[in-house]
Amino acid sequence: MESRPAGMVTLALDAEGGDHAPEEVVAGARAAASPELKVLLVGRPEIVAPYLDGIGSANVELVPSEATISSHEEPAKAVRGRPMSSTVLGARLVSEGRAQGFVGAGSTGAMLAAGLLVVKRVRGVKRPAIVTVLPGMSGPVVFLDAGANADCRPEHLLEFGALGSVFARYALDIERPRVGLLNIGEEETKGSELALGAHSLLAASGLDFVGNVEGRDLLFDAADVVVTDGFTGNVALKLLEGTARALLLRVRQAGEADLRSKVGSLLLRPALREVRAALDPEEYGGTYLLGLRGLVVICHGNSSRVAIANALRFGAGAVRQGIVEAVERELGRTADG
Amino acid sequence: MESRPAGMVTLALDAEGGDHAPEEVVAGARAAASPELKVLLVGRPEIVAPYLDGIGSANVELVPSEATISSHEEPAKAVRGRPMSSTVLGARLVSEGRAQGFVGAGSTGAMLAAGLLVVKRVRGVKRPAIVTVLPGMSGPVVFLDAGANADCRPEHLLEFGALGSVFARYALDIERPRVGLLNIGEEETKGSELALGAHSLLAASGLDFVGNVEGRDLLFDAADVVVTDGFTGNVALKLLEGTARALLLRVRQAGEADLRSKVGSLLLRPALREVRAALDPEEYGGTYLLGLRGLVVICHGNSSRVAIANALRFGAGAVRQGIVEAVERELGRTADG
Repeated sequence: MESRPAGMVTLALDAEGGDHAPEEVVAGARAAASPELKVLLVGRPEIVAPYLDGIGSANVELVPSEATISSHEEPAKAVRGRPMSSTVLGARLVSEGRAQGFVGAGSTGAMLAAGLLVVKRVRGVKRPAIVTVLPGMSGPVVFLDAGANADCRPEHLLEFGALGSVFARYALDIERPRVGLLNIGEEETKGSELALGAHSLLAASGLDFVGNVEGRDLLFDAADVVVTDGFTGNVALKLLEGTARALLLRVRQAGEADLRSKVGSLLLRPALREVRAALDPEEYGGTYLLGLRGLVVICHGNSSRVAIANALRFGAGAVRQGIVEAVERELGRTADG
Repeated sequence: MESRPAGMVTLALDAEGGDHAPEEVVAGARAAASPELKVLLVGRPEIVAPYLDGIGSANVELVPSEATISSHEEPAKAVRGRPMSSTVLGARLVSEGRAQGFVGAGSTGAMLAAGLLVVKRVRGVKRPAIVTVLPGMSGPVVFLDAGANADCRPEHLLEFGALGSVFARYALDIERPRVGLLNIGEEETKGSELALGAHSLLAASGLDFVGNVEGRDLLFDAADVVVTDGFTGNVALKLLEGTARALLLRVRQAGEADLRSKVGSLLLRPALREVRAALDPEEYGGTYLLGLRGLVVICHGNSSRVAIANALRFGAGAVRQGIVEAVERELGRTADG
């Protein structure tokens, strides 16, 4: 597995993206920046500069933008119409080679549009996808598409299998990733028209296809890479988060039932904190838009400074692992697009 | 809200359906049967009778079948070809008026096929759906379609909204249920072609439509009834189960980390048992195939005697609540099919 030698990585960061921008975003940049990781903070100086005072660091540089894109706008239109917005400018730093990746917590739609329209697809990749890493019980599970493509055809799911495999090999060091298809039964005759078509294509591909994976097995080592359309994938990812939150809330409530439970809960607290962390998307991995000519990392809208710093570190890791080049090499070569 | 007066309910039960049939199924029947709930146990006498010895109860009656349907068979073909199988015969007891509902833990596909082909659709209902009740944090959430229709059109999701509303009103006593559409964003412009189309139809309907519900809000009181296609719904339901299982496993593992955690875990155990029960599909509700001329309750394949007994009790409750009649009255009248 070849990878770029360790060294300076430069990432652009949308200083105005996210519910807690710019304060938390700037703080995240300051936390993650280092001699090995330079952060180009893209934002309007009048908004961002107040939070930059006193950094005195050569590792964080302000790149002035002139506008912003809100989550209520139609993404493609906003991206086309506002080239000097922080989201578009951040993406442009990648397409112009000034940064190797772009990280942002703004509207997923705008990040997606900026990725597709500005960073642009790898030639041969039909549908760049959002790749996320789920906290499986036996290790990470690469899951895609988590929301880039609401409507898919079978050949797109095949492509997701190839993209996910590259990610698993380069980012997670899994030599021959097992690829599964999220479906509603284990038998190959089960599923929607889309799933049936994707099953045939995946089974005939050179990927290590292990068949259908049901929702209940997704976290239980059924496969290293699990593919689905962006609608099901987004629902699944958010449901997983919601279910974990609901359950931990119930566990907390259980710890207030009576004195015995209160003491038990207090004693168990440090261990439970680790459970929480293991299931926290801010901790366990970033979300990547893969299939583009540069790395794009999409953060949760409500990202804290910790989440932003982690996303920058994950992004720098992915750049060093050479994931974009691997996608270009493997999908750019074999695909017909 | 009118409902059938309390009194004797008769339910057919597939004695040969499920991973633990017939032993657990028969035990479940014995546990649930009462002067108010008569169970017609459908199975081959040579298989079932050994477990019936010594009941001496007039509330459980063996109805002899002559074959069985396995989960590996093509359901519709098996149902058409084997009229004397326990699954088909159980459904026939409903269509012939000898039972008011049919409960089974066999293959979902076979239960579905028996429901559609033998019990038959209510005239006017296009797509009977699998309705399940999720353990929301503020109360039950009616969720459909959990797997009957892998491919849907927008008008089917509208129908699910109507079916789910009837269920919420009659089974859960929610006077004016809020109906939500499972989707990948809150804005009405978000989603797949299917979701966009369904959104328009639901918004224009007489239902109390509250808009899109994201995966992360499904358990957090976003709506009383949430509709989606049977593919997404089945993935979501199973993922919810899998996530709860993974998380409770992590909590248990956390309770073995060190002595402090062990003591904490021991003290918290009774309270956690309640959390487990609240999230256990065996405890919190049945899964109904709604839109048919009789009640069909589909149990988990791995149902224990407790699950079977609960499904029978839930089923009897649904019969007394008059859900089938309500569907016939409300959807049979207004639909054009």
